[in-house]
Amino acid sequence: MTERDFQLDARLNNDCLTLGELLSGNRLLLHKNASVTWLIVVPQTDKTELYELPKDQQQILLDEINRLSAYLKERPDCDKINVATIGNVVSQLHIHIISRNISDPYWPGVVWGEQATKKWDQIEIQKIIRELQAKQIISG
Amino acid sequence: MTERDFQLDARLNNDCLTLGELLSGNRLLLHKNASVTWLIVVPQTDKTELYELPKDQQQILLDEINRLSAYLKERPDCDKINVATIGNVVSQLHIHIISRNISDPYWPGVVWGEQATKKWDQIEIQKIIRELQAKQIISG
Repeated sequence: MTERDFQLDARLNNDCLTLGELLSGNRLLLHKNASVTWLIVVPQTDKTELYELPKDQQQILLDEINRLSAYLKERPDCDKINVATIGNVVSQLHIHIISRNISDPYWPGVVWGEQATKKWDQIEIQKIIRELQAKQIISG
Repeated sequence: MTERDFQLDARLNNDCLTLGELLSGNRLLLHKNASVTWLIVVPQTDKTELYELPKDQQQILLDEINRLSAYLKERPDCDKINVATIGNVVSQLHIHIISRNISDPYWPGVVWGEQATKKWDQIEIQKIIRELQAKQIISG
């Protein structure tokens, strides 16, 4: 699939903000629920299961998961990283990388299916984008 | 960490059955909740985050996730694979690989935090073990 063919799923588009493009061209989203810092990587693929991705795309994705996890861990209040690909509702392959805090409203439960309790401030979003660009995780 | 030092977390030990050892020495568990086929890989490590694992261990784990996902997809009634590492309750690093069906009792929600609704039959467990051994995914 080429960049030109890439179509973000309507539900992901509705639930998330786009932070930018990872160096691979994969899309990086931020979930609108600001109670947790919830990143989502959307690879450029028609496959719906992680194991179906070609090996080279898996390697790129693993590297992106590693770099984004390390970034989240450096931010304040990150007690645990949750990494998951579920896709029961949205079939377009996407990987959640979520910074969890023992005081967040869902802890120790998972975040999926929970109501959003807080909105992102635009200043904070711009700060995240600048930090990810400075680390050369997203292009910009 | 050597095999000798490996200690399975008490909660994982209580919630799961051990299917065997993957070829890497990582432990393969089956969650006792038989409403879904729920595999759990427990790597031999003291790290608690996926991104902290050395690259070679990550590669082994990725290969195990691929092979176990393909195995689950071949079994009856698998509509989607859920792959996740969460660790909010049990800090010992473990990776969930779960076969989901659109008629399972939790669909399209996630399985974590839900009550078990069905127990495994011993005959069925032995069948899974034999299949995983035949595919050389677990030793034995």
